[in-house]
Amino acid sequence: MISFKNDYSEGAHENIINLLVKSNLKQENGYGEDNYSTIAREKIKKTINNDNIDIHFISGGTQANLTVISSILKPYESVIAAKTGHICVHETGAIEATGHKINEIETKNGKLYPELILPILNEHTDEHMVKPKLVFISNSTEIGTVYTKDELVNLSEFCKSNDLLLYLDGARLGSALTSEGNDLTLEDLSKLLDVFYIGGTKNGALIGEAIIIINDELKDNFRFNLKQKGALLAKGRLIAIQFVELFTDNLFFKLATHANLMAKIISDEIKKLGFEFLTDSKSNQIFPILPNKLINKLEKNYDFYIWQKIDNDTSAIRIVTSWATKEILFF
Amino acid sequence: MISFKNDYSEGAHENIINLLVKSNLKQENGYGEDNYSTIAREKIKKTINNDNIDIHFISGGTQANLTVISSILKPYESVIAAKTGHICVHETGAIEATGHKINEIETKNGKLYPELILPILNEHTDEHMVKPKLVFISNSTEIGTVYTKDELVNLSEFCKSNDLLLYLDGARLGSALTSEGNDLTLEDLSKLLDVFYIGGTKNGALIGEAIIIINDELKDNFRFNLKQKGALLAKGRLIAIQFVELFTDNLFFKLATHANLMAKIISDEIKKLGFEFLTDSKSNQIFPILPNKLINKLEKNYDFYIWQKIDNDTSAIRIVTSWATKEILFF
Amino acid sequence: MISFKNDYSEGAHENIINLLVKSNLKQENGYGEDNYSTIAREKIKKTINNDNIDIHFISGGTQANLTVISSILKPYESVIAAKTGHICVHETGAIEATGHKINEIETKNGKLYPELILPILNEHTDEHMVKPKLVFISNSTEIGTVYTKDELVNLSEFCKSNDLLLYLDGARLGSALTSEGNDLTLEDLSKLLDVFYIGGTKNGALIGEAIIIINDELKDNFRFNLKQKGALLAKGRLIAIQFVELFTDNLFFKLATHANLMAKIISDEIKKLGFEFLTDSKSNQIFPILPNKLINKLEKNYDFYIWQKIDNDTSAIRIVTSWATKEILFF
Amino acid sequence: MISFKNDYSEGAHENIINLLVKSNLKQENGYGEDNYSTIAREKIKKTINNDNIDIHFISGGTQANLTVISSILKPYESVIAAKTGHICVHETGAIEATGHKINEIETKNGKLYPELILPILNEHTDEHMVKPKLVFISNSTEIGTVYTKDELVNLSEFCKSNDLLLYLDGARLGSALTSEGNDLTLEDLSKLLDVFYIGGTKNGALIGEAIIIINDELKDNFRFNLKQKGALLAKGRLIAIQFVELFTDNLFFKLATHANLMAKIISDEIKKLGFEFLTDSKSNQIFPILPNKLINKLEKNYDFYIWQKIDNDTSAIRIVTSWATKEILFF
Repeated sequence: MISFKNDYSEGAHENIINLLVKSNLKQENGYGEDNYSTIAREKIKKTINNDNIDIHFISGGTQANLTVISSILKPYESVIAAKTGHICVHETGAIEATGHKINEIETKNGKLYPELILPILNEHTDEHMVKPKLVFISNSTEIGTVYTKDELVNLSEFCKSNDLLLYLDGARLGSALTSEGNDLTLEDLSKLLDVFYIGGTKNGALIGEAIIIINDELKDNFRFNLKQKGALLAKGRLIAIQFVELFTDNLFFKLATHANLMAKIISDEIKKLGFEFLTDSKSNQIFPILPNKLINKLEKNYDFYIWQKIDNDTSAIRIVTSWATKEILFF
Repeated sequence: MISFKNDYSEGAHENIINLLVKSNLKQENGYGEDNYSTIAREKIKKTINNDNIDIHFISGGTQANLTVISSILKPYESVIAAKTGHICVHETGAIEATGHKINEIETKNGKLYPELILPILNEHTDEHMVKPKLVFISNSTEIGTVYTKDELVNLSEFCKSNDLLLYLDGARLGSALTSEGNDLTLEDLSKLLDVFYIGGTKNGALIGEAIIIINDELKDNFRFNLKQKGALLAKGRLIAIQFVELFTDNLFFKLATHANLMAKIISDEIKKLGFEFLTDSKSNQIFPILPNKLINKLEKNYDFYIWQKIDNDTSAIRIVTSWATKEILFF
Repeated sequence: MISFKNDYSEGAHENIINLLVKSNLKQENGYGEDNYSTIAREKIKKTINNDNIDIHFISGGTQANLTVISSILKPYESVIAAKTGHICVHETGAIEATGHKINEIETKNGKLYPELILPILNEHTDEHMVKPKLVFISNSTEIGTVYTKDELVNLSEFCKSNDLLLYLDGARLGSALTSEGNDLTLEDLSKLLDVFYIGGTKNGALIGEAIIIINDELKDNFRFNLKQKGALLAKGRLIAIQFVELFTDNLFFKLATHANLMAKIISDEIKKLGFEFLTDSKSNQIFPILPNKLINKLEKNYDFYIWQKIDNDTSAIRIVTSWATKEILFF
Repeated sequence: MISFKNDYSEGAHENIINLLVKSNLKQENGYGEDNYSTIAREKIKKTINNDNIDIHFISGGTQANLTVISSILKPYESVIAAKTGHICVHETGAIEATGHKINEIETKNGKLYPELILPILNEHTDEHMVKPKLVFISNSTEIGTVYTKDELVNLSEFCKSNDLLLYLDGARLGSALTSEGNDLTLEDLSKLLDVFYIGGTKNGALIGEAIIIINDELKDNFRFNLKQKGALLAKGRLIAIQFVELFTDNLFFKLATHANLMAKIISDEIKKLGFEFLTDSKSNQIFPILPNKLINKLEKNYDFYIWQKIDNDTSAIRIVTSWATKEILFF
């Protein structure tokens, strides 16, 4: 049985494992003040080509989202997000648990645009309602779509002119930035966003995400937030080591490129067979719409999620490829 | 420079590293539903000799404390803890951030006794005050002391008869259970407590603690709490692997025994030299009181924390040994 | 200028004022343990014809909602509400501020039905999502509509069979229960709901709502929740006095009947003129759709909210009548 | 039976009741935007002799404390308070419920001094601990003591030079400012504090406190906080009317002066009889230490709290006088 359920089924790329082994008995300071954290920060800054950023390593995406968002908002401020956003659906109310409402927006493709956000701003005009302050986006989105540079520039300008901050959940940022047609770079992100995170867990790391704080006002005392949310690992070296290797020799981008290629091969084959897709994805998550009979047959050899019932005879399934997916013939 | 600052300076015991390497490319389910989690749970249950417990793996102690405690208490209920307790001092208000007050108790040795708790109960009699519901203890404590079986039995009975739940923070439980004179076992704990955690991070694991829920009423839907607090790792296998090895061939106890022995060797040498100690510790944290001049000299070769000023000429320092400490001559 | 902006523009019915004056210098216990609170509770119990309920007085609706809801839910549990629900729109994220997500449902008429709730239950199946536990409804709703007994019976049965609790926000409950065609009584409510509140502020009281807890499991220690949320008034007598009078000689129902009648007179006149309404309201809030020109003209003599733009030429306005509205010719 | 249990046993001063009656049928805007609120704000500003303040009316002290404090602090910031402080003891964890730890300080007389606060600042040096940001004091304190101008100036300067904000709980501020030997004025407070509240409930009002925000940085969007905490009354006129009258013809100070005088008369008589007091109070709360036999005798005619057991034969009782206490012979 081969699993296409997600991109975190395997351990880590061998370079990471090797450094874990090699570094194992070195004594290091705790809580992210070790040498590997320093090295990883330097490498990421160099890749982003931006020295004026703060970098913090954290164990997972939900923890990154809840720690970042709760650190930014005043009690009455809210987050704006697409209804398909991870924080709206799949984080068990983690954001609300820190006290904040999410203003959810229905979208066609999982992406936010100024024209979708504007009505929310127009409605929220007085103290009887929350005050929207932060826009949450994901790239790639939870349904595999990817922002273009134009889209992100527009959104960024809209946010700035409306006193909104912009945060990007980069759980699958590697896949987005290496997807076909992508014209965004990490450097662009560091100019257009206030804060984002670079996902390691879903792109070849054993564990960990790297939070990148760009906006100076969000930098102060961030480690207090990390510690309070239980996000400051004693052996911070563990996550740092992941990023040392991911940002050595472009490994981060190579792994994502591979995942995308694997998805494209599968995708192309499915298209050849004449099937449609639920969303237009160039990233490592694809959502083909298949006859239930075929799905049943596929389930005997492959593991994947049935995403959505389309009609009585067909359903959309989710296929996720990863850095570890081997090039195989899907059908 | 050799560090005695803490017991999380190194990576992990080689058995753990070996299993990480060996298991690396196996596909596993995410979020703690992998095979290693199953195996680790079985091994722990066998060691505890109690099958009627729920086990969840989590990345660190603060996260364990905040997730467990917030899952138990109603909004108006409070935790009782020693003033030296980790949740009172060194977790950046993590418990309060989930909405709950801690009733802090001054203690002589970091341990709680019924007679120390009783006044709190007597004072909190109506709805103008919080309602104490949970007693938090640590073993070994934050200042190196260890509970005897008698002490824990008394505390447990007191809690039961006063409608209080009892939770033990086992960040250094290995050291406690293998300390000289200890008469408690994991099996005892599973009879005397409602919930506790077994610390991996400070006893040879790269990452991770194992939460053990004994009280049936605390078991329901605990994974919802984990997810909401960002504590459900996508690659849960990572932590599970630590505990598979820690609970194979008694590694957990062997590593802790070694740490204690290293502390004892140092401790004995210091005693021979005629120095006193701040607390009576048989565990892997010791607090010798030394002349400042000697401390300055030691600081040239060793790294450790100065814990407390005693008088103008002397201070207590904290020496922490670990599974990885090599037998060396301290002076 | 006469205001139809809301039903809390005036002070209180004179009976209430009279009792305030009369009782003023009597010494009473604080925090809801005064004699007036006892009398008011007795009168309400008699009216509801149910002795097995707990009654607490509280200063306003948002405070009632946030105190009740946060007292019921575990951290990972959510509330289900119509998108037009007061807690979703007009309470500045008060529920989320206590840590809980609201699952918002699009409705046609502001009311919830089993078939609208079922999809939410079907979607929320595992620990990656919140666990819906409480259904929040309003009667009358925020857009003036009213539940029939059949509707509420169905909803109540649906909740019971799906392990959901049912809570009714009765800010305008008087108006609902005296509206044309209503077939529900307070006694019915005490059989169909787990908890609700009877609104005083919008029905002739100077201040206050009465929380009615029916479900035994929700009764314990509720005063702790009140105190913690700042809802336990030192001079609790103030609110109690309102309810002593509202529940003497049916004043509560008489005042609401009057408000409804005033709305009906206006409503009938508007209908005669051939205008439509945004919602089908028999209660004291009506939403006529008028030409903007007419609205401009009306604004010279009357104060009201423009509720919603319909098209370039017409808008829906909100007219709210109250116990204090005098029978006047609207046009 | 005459009650000395507290200063909120009666209703309100007759001037307030008269204005309530007189204003009853006037239509006013809701939520603190009524004319009485405007008038009350003007009168208070004039009395304080400071126009650059924001004033908000709120129903009670716990609600004032929790709304103000949670509006100021970032998630990881804490409040410093005397252990006897109302927020530490008698608010059912209201502050912690908004997510913040209180650093409690043992005091001799219920008052805070720089030398008591300094150790807290020295201990809290890194992100493993909360960051103290706000100092909470009460005047008069919970045990009847009163700050001198010198004390408050020192505290204020200490706070400013240590980046701490200073908040005063004025539940019994009237009594403090009219107590024998007091040399502080409201105008002084508006120069020395960042925010405080003037208590109405315990000084002749039916309900209500007036929050005074001095520090410009704390003013923005404060009404959002009020609404979210359920503290924005629909009929805000009710509280405003209390303060219109309290700040007409010095009523606020007259009522407090009377309460203090009543306490002094009782106090002097007790002193004449040779009894001691638990605290040195010039305000309307006194704590005589009496033989239990005498207490039992007094209890037949008077209602009061037994505050603290002193030894087997004597106890301290609490006597609270109020604006409504009649001059009577106590013994």
